[in-house]
Amino acid sequence: MTDPALLTARLIRCASVTPEAGPALDLLQEVLEPAGFDCRRVDRNGVPNLYARWGAKGARSFGFNGHVDVVPPGDPASWTHPPFSGALADGMIWGRGATDMKSGVAAFVAAAVDFVTETPPDGAVILTVTGDEEGPSRDGTRAILDWMAQAGERMDVCIVGEPSNPEVMGEMIKIGRRGSLTAQITATGRQGHAAYPHRALNPLHALVRLLGDLTARPLDEGMAHFDPSGLQVTTIDCGNPASNVIPERATATVNIRFNDAHTGDSLTAMLRERAAAVEAETGVRIALAVTVSGESFVTEPGPFVDLVAGVVTEHTGRVPVLSTSGGTSDARFVKDHCPVVEFGLVGAYMHQVDERVPALQVHQLKAIYQSILQRYFA
Amino acid sequence: MTDPALLTARLIRCASVTPEAGPALDLLQEVLEPAGFDCRRVDRNGVPNLYARWGAKGARSFGFNGHVDVVPPGDPASWTHPPFSGALADGMIWGRGATDMKSGVAAFVAAAVDFVTETPPDGAVILTVTGDEEGPSRDGTRAILDWMAQAGERMDVCIVGEPSNPEVMGEMIKIGRRGSLTAQITATGRQGHAAYPHRALNPLHALVRLLGDLTARPLDEGMAHFDPSGLQVTTIDCGNPASNVIPERATATVNIRFNDAHTGDSLTAMLRERAAAVEAETGVRIALAVTVSGESFVTEPGPFVDLVAGVVTEHTGRVPVLSTSGGTSDARFVKDHCPVVEFGLVGAYMHQVDERVPALQVHQLKAIYQSILQRYFA
Repeated sequence: MTDPALLTARLIRCASVTPEAGPALDLLQEVLEPAGFDCRRVDRNGVPNLYARWGAKGARSFGFNGHVDVVPPGDPASWTHPPFSGALADGMIWGRGATDMKSGVAAFVAAAVDFVTETPPDGAVILTVTGDEEGPSRDGTRAILDWMAQAGERMDVCIVGEPSNPEVMGEMIKIGRRGSLTAQITATGRQGHAAYPHRALNPLHALVRLLGDLTARPLDEGMAHFDPSGLQVTTIDCGNPASNVIPERATATVNIRFNDAHTGDSLTAMLRERAAAVEAETGVRIALAVTVSGESFVTEPGPFVDLVAGVVTEHTGRVPVLSTSGGTSDARFVKDHCPVVEFGLVGAYMHQVDERVPALQVHQLKAIYQSILQRYFA
Repeated sequence: MTDPALLTARLIRCASVTPEAGPALDLLQEVLEPAGFDCRRVDRNGVPNLYARWGAKGARSFGFNGHVDVVPPGDPASWTHPPFSGALADGMIWGRGATDMKSGVAAFVAAAVDFVTETPPDGAVILTVTGDEEGPSRDGTRAILDWMAQAGERMDVCIVGEPSNPEVMGEMIKIGRRGSLTAQITATGRQGHAAYPHRALNPLHALVRLLGDLTARPLDEGMAHFDPSGLQVTTIDCGNPASNVIPERATATVNIRFNDAHTGDSLTAMLRERAAAVEAETGVRIALAVTVSGESFVTEPGPFVDLVAGVVTEHTGRVPVLSTSGGTSDARFVKDHCPVVEFGLVGAYMHQVDERVPALQVHQLKAIYQSILQRYFA
């Protein structure tokens, strides 16, 4: 029996602020190799990554994905227990990464080791663990998936072990995510005296018109598995100190979180069209710089989602909501490889001082993962 | 015969950047006293001001108002002739104040001196000249008018000799001004993550709604002697660098130039009402700080305006437009004392490098002022 709470504490003691995760991956390798996992480091551009497979290449496979890098702890003096102590106290495991997500990685590593040891399946169990999910995420899970594609390695389905439950275990499985787009808007008019507006062209009036138009109506009413898309103006700046001067230029930033009624391209086209309309009405030049940091995606409910949800209900007594809410995770990369869902711990204390997790919850998560493996290969 | 072009050049040589106008006023006093003007300095808080009356106190009187302070010249090396040289070249008088408005003061001083000398009237001619019109304007013309009220001195009508013609002599008399109001708007919401807008309150959305409302419709369609009132957003600022964060606070400034369909108070009430409506709709707190820097005013066309316009037409062949356009001048103070109009030179080169004025234009303005005095006292 592999103890996931102890493994969590040992992982916390590897101070693995992004991307310094080499020692934490070494520790996992020490646990996995004796159980027969074929481990391989697929580092890229200084980011350490671990690929581990039990079973034959090409066999029917179940995958897990997670990360052992953590965000910085801030001032250690603010912590009840030092942030990299992995202290066990009051039934809790304390330290940076306790919930996000060394406990999740420990739970699926322990579940996989015990599963292949106790009930060796007819198939493969694949673990993908990165040292950069909290950072730029360019050479983390993406590097593992790139290497897998080249090497002919494949997960048929995958669970990302990120904390998925807002308050209590079992209430939520994440089956997708909204996409995210950011547009930098620059409006350029003609400077002039506020008393002679006909000789000037006020870029702020054009900007207010465009942003008023964009915020007046919802982008949609929500989709089957998604909340409505949302648009937020996150800043407007001009910096004109003179109240008798019409400024030449002003800028704004708009962030859109969108569901599968849209794509980054369709929203970019919508923004350009509305900006062009305001340009035509006002004469103010409006430039857009659009960045799409992720498209929306969803793993449609079906046998895989039903299997995960069924096991969760058996262990927790709760019927999990199938959600697409929240910020990004590496599931946005895995979804191009195979069907993916996220299920893990309760997300309290993430990125906070005194991050901690109840030891029992980690044991419960390990048990859920092990049951999922048993059900999948049954 | 007093030469107004020469007097302009001599005034320019007194480098009278606000409020260092003492020597320029001394020079005027040297010209006025020999002609019988009773001169008195009514300085206040370091600002020099000159009051000069020819004729008996309490007699029917005609007044002129002007200023001999000037804005700074900037880099003297940029000037063709040094900015305080009063150079006479190419038919022009060169230097800071050549158009705004040492030439105007020289023209009415020369006209007044020649008028009382050549055709002594049955009445009084009163000249009010300040050393602070370009600065804060607190202790300039206002100080002269305050002293006059206490001393029982009075102008029955007054011409402010500011440049009033946009392009050519005789095309425009200013009979009033729009008012000016500035509102600083602060919108305070609740900070949060852009992916979870229901947990935040975006102050920029409230600001965009309020400013969109304020700029959507004209404030009025114009009044008898006024262009339509105009509202300009002069800046919006937030300074939030994070596109995934909804900011807590944002600010904007709005400037309104308004005609006599409004007052500072009525517009302040309108702004507060609209802000309250957006507060009620959005929950975002909106604070307003309003400054009214001048109410609108107009000297209704009638005998005085007709007299001035008639003389202008005789001298220039043009029927002047009666206008209320443009920025502020000390006429906003004089209007509380007596009927006031503005007529002076062509306003080209004001506040610019190589400010200059055709010497002939100054002679023409002097002749117009002298004819106005003759007609008034006829």
